[in-house]
Amino acid sequence: MRICGGKRSMFQVSVPPISLLATIICLTLPFLSPTLSLQSAVNVWPKPRLVSWPKPLARSLSTNFTINSPYHQNLQPAISRYLRLIRTEHYHPLITPSVNFSTSSPPLQTLSIDISDLAASLQHGVNETYSLSISEVGETAYLTAETAWGAMRGLETFSQLVWGNPSVVPVGLYIWDAPLFAHRGVMLDTSRNYYGVEDILRTIEAMSANKLNVFHWHVTDSHSFPLMVPSEPELAAKGAYGPDMIYSPSDVAKIVQFGLEQGVRVLPEIDSPGHTGSWAEAYPEIVACANMFWLPVGSDWGDRLASEPGTGHLNPLNPKTYQVLENVIRDVSILFPETFYHGGADEIVPGCWKADPTIQSFIANGGTLSQLLETFVNSTLPYILSLNRTVVYWEDVLLDGAYHLQTWNNGTNNTKRIVEAGYRAIVSSSEFYYLDCGHGDFLGNDSQYDQQAGGESLNGGSWCGPFKTWQTIYDYDITYGLSEDEAELVLGGEVALWSEQADSTVLDARIWPRTSAMAETLWSGNRDESGKKRSAEATDRLNEWRYRMVSRGVKAEPIQPLWCVRNPGMCNAVQSS
Amino acid sequence: MRICGGKRSMFQVSVPPISLLATIICLTLPFLSPTLSLQSAVNVWPKPRLVSWPKPLARSLSTNFTINSPYHQNLQPAISRYLRLIRTEHYHPLITPSVNFSTSSPPLQTLSIDISDLAASLQHGVNETYSLSISEVGETAYLTAETAWGAMRGLETFSQLVWGNPSVVPVGLYIWDAPLFAHRGVMLDTSRNYYGVEDILRTIEAMSANKLNVFHWHVTDSHSFPLMVPSEPELAAKGAYGPDMIYSPSDVAKIVQFGLEQGVRVLPEIDSPGHTGSWAEAYPEIVACANMFWLPVGSDWGDRLASEPGTGHLNPLNPKTYQVLENVIRDVSILFPETFYHGGADEIVPGCWKADPTIQSFIANGGTLSQLLETFVNSTLPYILSLNRTVVYWEDVLLDGAYHLQTWNNGTNNTKRIVEAGYRAIVSSSEFYYLDCGHGDFLGNDSQYDQQAGGESLNGGSWCGPFKTWQTIYDYDITYGLSEDEAELVLGGEVALWSEQADSTVLDARIWPRTSAMAETLWSGNRDESGKKRSAEATDRLNEWRYRMVSRGVKAEPIQPLWCVRNPGMCNAVQSS
Repeated sequence: MRICGGKRSMFQVSVPPISLLATIICLTLPFLSPTLSLQSAVNVWPKPRLVSWPKPLARSLSTNFTINSPYHQNLQPAISRYLRLIRTEHYHPLITPSVNFSTSSPPLQTLSIDISDLAASLQHGVNETYSLSISEVGETAYLTAETAWGAMRGLETFSQLVWGNPSVVPVGLYIWDAPLFAHRGVMLDTSRNYYGVEDILRTIEAMSANKLNVFHWHVTDSHSFPLMVPSEPELAAKGAYGPDMIYSPSDVAKIVQFGLEQGVRVLPEIDSPGHTGSWAEAYPEIVACANMFWLPVGSDWGDRLASEPGTGHLNPLNPKTYQVLENVIRDVSILFPETFYHGGADEIVPGCWKADPTIQSFIANGGTLSQLLETFVNSTLPYILSLNRTVVYWEDVLLDGAYHLQTWNNGTNNTKRIVEAGYRAIVSSSEFYYLDCGHGDFLGNDSQYDQQAGGESLNGGSWCGPFKTWQTIYDYDITYGLSEDEAELVLGGEVALWSEQADSTVLDARIWPRTSAMAETLWSGNRDESGKKRSAEATDRLNEWRYRMVSRGVKAEPIQPLWCVRNPGMCNAVQSS
Repeated sequence: MRICGGKRSMFQVSVPPISLLATIICLTLPFLSPTLSLQSAVNVWPKPRLVSWPKPLARSLSTNFTINSPYHQNLQPAISRYLRLIRTEHYHPLITPSVNFSTSSPPLQTLSIDISDLAASLQHGVNETYSLSISEVGETAYLTAETAWGAMRGLETFSQLVWGNPSVVPVGLYIWDAPLFAHRGVMLDTSRNYYGVEDILRTIEAMSANKLNVFHWHVTDSHSFPLMVPSEPELAAKGAYGPDMIYSPSDVAKIVQFGLEQGVRVLPEIDSPGHTGSWAEAYPEIVACANMFWLPVGSDWGDRLASEPGTGHLNPLNPKTYQVLENVIRDVSILFPETFYHGGADEIVPGCWKADPTIQSFIANGGTLSQLLETFVNSTLPYILSLNRTVVYWEDVLLDGAYHLQTWNNGTNNTKRIVEAGYRAIVSSSEFYYLDCGHGDFLGNDSQYDQQAGGESLNGGSWCGPFKTWQTIYDYDITYGLSEDEAELVLGGEVALWSEQADSTVLDARIWPRTSAMAETLWSGNRDESGKKRSAEATDRLNEWRYRMVSRGVKAEPIQPLWCVRNPGMCNAVQSS
């Protein structure tokens, strides 16, 4: 099915049903041209799938503006939040929108929300479609959505349409919108360095403003165990960086609830069996090779104990391992209502297991490392599934089993391998979506930086350099090279911020606005109506959106001199015709 | 002359006279070993030239601790500031110093400052030597300095020696300290994006804490003219980004005065004749090729009008150019008491001048572009010299003349060319000291980022990628390959933050702690007593210093997981013996 004459994106996975109203509008109104959009008041990020605004008309917003909606326990706080934002933001666009004011229109009094399915819960694949209509006449604008979560997306769009003091909104406007991909996430590592609860809440709010819907919380790792697990309190008590760097059950509840009010799922990852050095502080007996030097003297890469400092793998041969792990998994499933559970399983390093005496005996008796991993998965996966969870692992574990895989290596090649094998995939290619890359190297005593001839060969430090620019992220097609059937197995994507060199001081700037680039690509694509990549046109829009995010309290990086925003097209690489 | 048996650094430019006391101590006390320093309370950044602390002893600081000093108008506010900091900071080191408490010592009541030359003004080459002595006995510690500016360096050192609550300081400690290079700076571009006065003050304060002494203010450029020049008010009125983005004379006075109280010179740069597009807002007649598209369609790199978007060169053939410029220079010399004046003169692009009709006639009549540049320099340099200023230009202009050159291209090769030609050099190699590099690309519609196979070839965007890690900066030897005589012509170095993709939101993290790396290299070198690069040992110290900067309100980036600080040596690339 085609959307209103727009060429169907090759990266579109599924097209939700278009409303009757949309169909009618499509027959009569042309697409808004990118140029008009740029200079105008319709600067919504991510760009909606369909915007119809044939005349550049605006009207004022009543100072008593209000929002009506059927009752929904999570939508209600969202409405209060957006009402406050809409009434008080008074954002001044960097380029004043060139609009006429409709003399016939009264001030807009109300946004009226209609929701078909109030019972739909926030989970993978929930319908996020909405349509928004602001007419020239009448005192009411209309937001129609299948679910409360779609209504939240529409509220965000509406908030971005309001500007100025006194506030105005475009009129004669119709938007139909829905995401191309169902899974649109940010992964944050809170183990290598700790982030406060406020940092996480601010990140979730900014995600929601970018129509992202999955906060993948890589909560534990080898470096610290900051999650208070009620049945296993020693893990955090001994494994966290300190008593002030622990997420309590009430912190988690607050974050989960905040996510619900923003339409953002909070997906926990308890990485295991690798990346578990911090567990050894409480239970040394269940962790192989804990807290050893990661790369033994004189050994080569194949003999490493971990892929970076911070060693430790849970020992699959010790029954105590499963006692502790099941307690953790059960408690996590109680703390996090989210139906996806991420089990980690990345970077299982043979050298670590081989350093353990009990595993050495097992191998001496003919056992293999593959058997160890299978033992581990077979001893934990059924338990997680029994808790009604959909399991996600990193791609490193590709065995037979009922789980999804998150890919991070080898670009589009590994995505293809995963879906060819029949798995559903979440794309986090380190070549495109790793936000920490190319921004330094955290290892000590590394003599390779002592180069008086310049360090060009080092890619800015880190194994996955260079730095991923917003353009690199925006242009990435996560289903590149897949057949249509294969593409349907791609649930979506996630950027990842690993925290070797990030913490609260730099969180916003590492994530934003680069993550906005992914957000638009996964929501409405990265191509214009003619099928061409639209990153050129996106520059000015992203610039404007970055300033709006900053004004909302998110310290996103600038992407250009202010001069470029003021002089559209003048900072292009190639002169536009 | 050798300093206390330590091998003389090959990068040492001049050795100030060592005090008699230091000589005596040297005869009797060994150097502090790096290991002891690391675990101890003597974590001063940049590392002092000589630290003697034979026994790990500490004593408490009196709650009535005070500082005595002869009166000096700029030192007095510095003392007030340090007294407040020392009394209230109560910094908790990440690793608790392993010290014994001296039971025989009373609480330290006073730091007594002695200054030989109270009249010395803050200018290039001023003596910054100090020595600090905290004995086990008595109620007073002693800080001896040649000048008030050296005393400020010693106060900073003392402040970093204090930790805990209640506060303690190491005793039986003697420090002798002085910089290897006289010019240690940060260049900030406030034209491409604007920074508030508070941002600049915070940067100067952090510079002082790192014993840096030159804030090179690249105040104007093609993108905006944010400096209110009293004789030419139209330049800022029309050329700034807006009325709220102008530095008034009182702003400048505040910044200059703040610099004096921190021992930081404020060195203004009025870049010309290139990089002057913003001047055309007030005076279009004096600017060639203003506000044109930077890279004309169909033309190659040699025909560009500027090296990046934002075109405009002052026209050397128009007498009005010199009228305006002399007004600017004169006012700047009044606003900034600093005796260095930076005239810019980088990136003079033939295509820009050739686009101007008057210059076209000049060339048609046999004139050359070199003549134009000589005309410009000969018409402005004498005027600047007549105001008793030492002139600095970027290396792009290498004519005969009485000025210093700041190098930014071609690594150590250009430094050598400059000093071989007899100029004094300030080193800002873009391969090592440009803080903006490898962190994105600001050009619009650049199709090269559309690479599904990964963007490794792009070096993280920007012409000078990849990103410069702190290790790259720390290990750089700015006099590499020079003879001893040539090295004496190297005044020092500056990191540079060009602001295409930086503004207030990311300022601290772009500058710190990478600039701390340069600060130590230029102050006390990057080698240990045996002559080996000490970046390995510096990692833990820089980590600790970064946390202390954060606690002082500077949002410096983290360089490692907290786990690495807590587990010294475990995050090394190579296991230490």
